Amino acid sequence: MPTHRTGREIQLVSRPHGVPSPHNFAMVETPVPALDEDQVLVRNLVMSVDPYMRSRMNDVPSYVPPFALERALDGGAVGEVVESRSDALEVGDVVLHGLGWRDYAVGAARGFRRVDPEAAPLAAYLGVLGMPGLTAYAGLLEVASMKAGDVVFVSGAAGAVGSAAGQIAKLKGAARVIGSAGSAAKVEHVLGLGFDAAFDYKQAPVRRQLRDAAPDGIDVYFDNVGGDHLEAAIGSLRLRGRVALCGAISGYNESTAPPGPRNLALAIGKRLTLRGFIVNDHNALRGVFTEEVGGWIRGGRLRWEQTTRHGLENAPAAFIGLLQGENTGKMVVELSGGTA
Amino acid sequence: MPTHRTGREIQLVSRPHGVPSPHNFAMVETPVPALDEDQVLVRNLVMSVDPYMRSRMNDVPSYVPPFALERALDGGAVGEVVESRSDALEVGDVVLHGLGWRDYAVGAARGFRRVDPEAAPLAAYLGVLGMPGLTAYAGLLEVASMKAGDVVFVSGAAGAVGSAAGQIAKLKGAARVIGSAGSAAKVEHVLGLGFDAAFDYKQAPVRRQLRDAAPDGIDVYFDNVGGDHLEAAIGSLRLRGRVALCGAISGYNESTAPPGPRNLALAIGKRLTLRGFIVNDHNALRGVFTEEVGGWIRGGRLRWEQTTRHGLENAPAAFIGLLQGENTGKMVVELSGGTA
Repeated sequence: MPTHRTGREIQLVSRPHGVPSPHNFAMVETPVPALDEDQVLVRNLVMSVDPYMRSRMNDVPSYVPPFALERALDGGAVGEVVESRSDALEVGDVVLHGLGWRDYAVGAARGFRRVDPEAAPLAAYLGVLGMPGLTAYAGLLEVASMKAGDVVFVSGAAGAVGSAAGQIAKLKGAARVIGSAGSAAKVEHVLGLGFDAAFDYKQAPVRRQLRDAAPDGIDVYFDNVGGDHLEAAIGSLRLRGRVALCGAISGYNESTAPPGPRNLALAIGKRLTLRGFIVNDHNALRGVFTEEVGGWIRGGRLRWEQTTRHGLENAPAAFIGLLQGENTGKMVVELSGGTA
Repeated sequence: MPTHRTGREIQLVSRPHGVPSPHNFAMVETPVPALDEDQVLVRNLVMSVDPYMRSRMNDVPSYVPPFALERALDGGAVGEVVESRSDALEVGDVVLHGLGWRDYAVGAARGFRRVDPEAAPLAAYLGVLGMPGLTAYAGLLEVASMKAGDVVFVSGAAGAVGSAAGQIAKLKGAARVIGSAGSAAKVEHVLGLGFDAAFDYKQAPVRRQLRDAAPDGIDVYFDNVGGDHLEAAIGSLRLRGRVALCGAISGYNESTAPPGPRNLALAIGKRLTLRGFIVNDHNALRGVFTEEVGGWIRGGRLRWEQTTRHGLENAPAAFIGLLQGENTGKMVVELSGGTA
């Protein structure tokens, strides 16, 4: 007989306009259902908040459906199996899955992937070894076709994706890697990761700072922010330059569309390629990614940072803080566990 | 002994701000130099005016150097060899070359390519069988990777490049081809070429008209104009849509940069690819292009229109008229010949 547990979950109760507020969220206690055949019950230990979640809070068609109101949000999480009706997983296994924002996750075992808690901190499976790391790897190498000798510019360079992208660029032989971030402390952090140059985009126009950091131009731009960063990059890109359009966080909270790059016509003469992507299209890379990035991590050649908030009740604030740039590296929330 | 000829040429005497004016140009009589070894003297019969020439009138670095002041302009032309010191060409040969905007062209024979004056009207070598035709062919098939079954949108559809692009799309199996143009008469012309739908972009917002013409969206956008057309296309493009960025005539006469597409962040979720190109990168296609397009022309399956002005002295007005949309199809200037 399964225990009659209850667990807490964070629901979206109204759609944010502009910057989300705590009032858009509610924490609700719900019964944990009994398991069906092949299902597992997982107690979440750590969950992810990511910029893409902001888009899903709008009720507009996108590449993933919008979050429903008065339902639990979802997203990456790592937890421990506490009950299993599957042969594939047993109690005590630590698993990565997509049912975050709640104390307890229930689902078919095939939706949960076992990870090794000894090989890396659990949060790394939500960051450098997980979706953000694969995003960086695929965007840089497949989407932007980065080659040894390229000059690479990465925006949001202190974030989970950006910090991985810049380091992977260096490890893959980029001639020079430039990062932008939103504070002096983040710039220091980015330089500490081995970027050749970094600047605080709040201190002076991006266009000028990028030109100073890469006076001969750039070959690849890994775009996490859109807006004036993209316009500056188009200005600095050299012949046959490539842009991986990964995120546009500068516009996520805007109610009106931000201005587009006024210099996009330069793409003609420079033969630029701008390509949007989402990580799900690149799952075929996961094997080589895990092997190569895992090796760099074991060898101490690839570093990552995380910013940790504590308690499911603080997940909305962690998410809002993420959109306001409070994080360095991956933002995660450690959960204290549900009530039995 | 060569004759002592003089010829007229059109020089750029000041750089236009915004729309060019006749005062930016001057017609100057100059002596025709004696031929060196391997050179030919060509009397021009017809010359091309093209939108890209406007960019070269600005003193900014671009993919081709800016036109120099108080020098003859240049561009595509077809003429007749009247003197030759080369074994490769003889008097009477009709040749395609890059020294337009003048009565007489002098240069090494390798810069002149013989064409067959019986196979097509001379102006066709400046249009559908020349640079604009190859631009359409390469942009559609190589840059935008158009495939049978795609829904294709072409802006500037009544122009030399656009009218070829739309017809080539149909001939290559596009499910549906939509064109935009700047007057009711041009829309009629475009429909007469076999486009499935066409609209006058001056009559209502492009976004609305495109949505009406392609309610299920588009797969390929061949962009000759930039501006609001590009924004509308990004809105209508489906998953994995492709944009060939060929021209941005809507901004060529602007002193301030036109607004960029405010919805470019949609490229992420839709995995769009936007790629700028210029025809010179695709010369390797010339053989297959000439064979395939030549065959369509001989078979009466590909049509083209030209707008002809007469007299070198009217070339600046023809060029200014081109930028204001006075042409349907390729705009050319027939020359009356120089003074001997």
